[in-house]
Amino acid sequence: MATMKDISKMTGLSSGTISRYINNSGYVSRESADKIQRAIDEINYIPNEHARVLYNKSSNVIGLIVPSLVNPFFAQMATVLEKNLNEKGYSIILYNTNDNSKEEAKAVNMLRGFRVDGILVGRPQNRDLLKKVDVPAVSFETEIGGDVVNITADNFLGGMQAFNALYDVGCRKILHIKGPDIFEATELRYKGFKEASNKKEDVLIETISFSNDFDTEFSVESVLGSVDLNDYDGIFVFNDIAAAISMSYITKKGFKIPDDIQVMGFDNSYLCELLSPKLSTIEQPFDEISKECVDTLISMIKNEKIEEKTIRVKTNVVLRESTKKL
Amino acid sequence: MATMKDISKMTGLSSGTISRYINNSGYVSRESADKIQRAIDEINYIPNEHARVLYNKSSNVIGLIVPSLVNPFFAQMATVLEKNLNEKGYSIILYNTNDNSKEEAKAVNMLRGFRVDGILVGRPQNRDLLKKVDVPAVSFETEIGGDVVNITADNFLGGMQAFNALYDVGCRKILHIKGPDIFEATELRYKGFKEASNKKEDVLIETISFSNDFDTEFSVESVLGSVDLNDYDGIFVFNDIAAAISMSYITKKGFKIPDDIQVMGFDNSYLCELLSPKLSTIEQPFDEISKECVDTLISMIKNEKIEEKTIRVKTNVVLRESTKKL
Repeated sequence: MATMKDISKMTGLSSGTISRYINNSGYVSRESADKIQRAIDEINYIPNEHARVLYNKSSNVIGLIVPSLVNPFFAQMATVLEKNLNEKGYSIILYNTNDNSKEEAKAVNMLRGFRVDGILVGRPQNRDLLKKVDVPAVSFETEIGGDVVNITADNFLGGMQAFNALYDVGCRKILHIKGPDIFEATELRYKGFKEASNKKEDVLIETISFSNDFDTEFSVESVLGSVDLNDYDGIFVFNDIAAAISMSYITKKGFKIPDDIQVMGFDNSYLCELLSPKLSTIEQPFDEISKECVDTLISMIKNEKIEEKTIRVKTNVVLRESTKKL
Repeated sequence: MATMKDISKMTGLSSGTISRYINNSGYVSRESADKIQRAIDEINYIPNEHARVLYNKSSNVIGLIVPSLVNPFFAQMATVLEKNLNEKGYSIILYNTNDNSKEEAKAVNMLRGFRVDGILVGRPQNRDLLKKVDVPAVSFETEIGGDVVNITADNFLGGMQAFNALYDVGCRKILHIKGPDIFEATELRYKGFKEASNKKEDVLIETISFSNDFDTEFSVESVLGSVDLNDYDGIFVFNDIAAAISMSYITKKGFKIPDDIQVMGFDNSYLCELLSPKLSTIEQPFDEISKECVDTLISMIKNEKIEEKTIRVKTNVVLRESTKKL
């Protein structure tokens, strides 16, 4: 690969002059600048980013840690975050931890080694490590505390909305399939769901827990196998992908959706439109969550004061075909 | 963040000694090594990766460029590639281009700036740029030529398998929904499909093209709206996500899958199991493609001779519920 030495040889200029030109860090005559640029173009020279980071003390790189790329929520969040960060001039180093807490800890330390300007972490597990991390950090989906700013959909509100949406379309015997205990977001959905149901007297609710720790390995048999589906007219599932698997199971058991059992998911990922019937769900507004993450992280990088340590973005009900028309 | 100077102050040792210890690049006494390690632990020091790269001339980082994270094929490929590369001691810098050729060119040059040890690029568009890129590069899904090694599912074979699978379950009027012309992989699926159909005399095939350039924006109305579905008993769609959208459309128009129309996808992504009926498809073996990509790229980084410039991995038929039982 072409180096600064090659440019020095071609132009007859010192590496100090060339470095000043490339880093835009001091006087270079018009004539020398033209010479250097011609040489750069000719040999297709790309400045060494590592030298630039050591020189500038800023990497313009953000570390993004997600627990899964095959969970549509995180795939879509990563896509939107990358787009928004690129627009602000940042590159991304992405780690996928497969919800493994050791992988996450390794990723945080790798990113520190890369001297990233900031870290964005989705559904984090290493609270203590992240609370004391020495770079600006923003978490989404799970709150950490400490100096880490938390940006999340209002999952408690979303849980309430899911209950009320099912209640409003006529469900009176509602099953909630709850996410793994370790995920704060799905705990809050459960609490919101329960809180809203407490206000109604003519409804029965039950909850079963899903305890596996990886979304796509949601084993529907182990969760729904112990349940008599005749007992329910509505099911609220903790996320869209688990709702899709549940719908497939319910249909196979001979129940019609939404006629026999109505189903609500959570996320409003692209999956909802691909299923038949199309999935009614609670929307986590990707664009808004991403924009808050990026704006907040950049403010922290600039050492601006952050007023709110937790920013909750309002969720919305999206009704499609897996629930009855009002 | 803690620096080498801090360790020097704490231990009273020179930065040369500390650097030798950290980079494992020369003699350090047992006593000094212990002192340095205690200081590192105490202040939670992480060596600067950029200094290490400049010193070692190797970054241990691989650049991964994918056209989409919301296409399950690329989400799963990125997941498997990252796992396999981590096992070999490499980190990943990931770029998602949204199938934008300018974004891809930008990503390639950013990765060159990071002095990555190698580049893996999925469904590339900038053939000329990549052919002459000055780091080892492997492409998957699309062949580039030049020094770039191409690892891909055997898409032509897959197209033949898709036709034969539909023929074997009784389809005689088959529609192929073809991918965008710019994607070599889907062109080859089309050619294989056509080639296999030429060998049968009792079958009619037709092809319509999908010309949008982003998978999830596959506008089913614009493609299937002009088609009379009564004319077909089988449909082969260029990938799983487009097959899912097509299935949803077909069902809405009142046709039963597989009784009226049988459907085959392509990829064998996790989506197949989420749909109802579950999608029959052609499998691209993710693990095998990823392993070939990683092994080949590492051989190239080690300057080993690569015998084959194109490695094609065999595809397989996976029958589920969207086709009839044999």
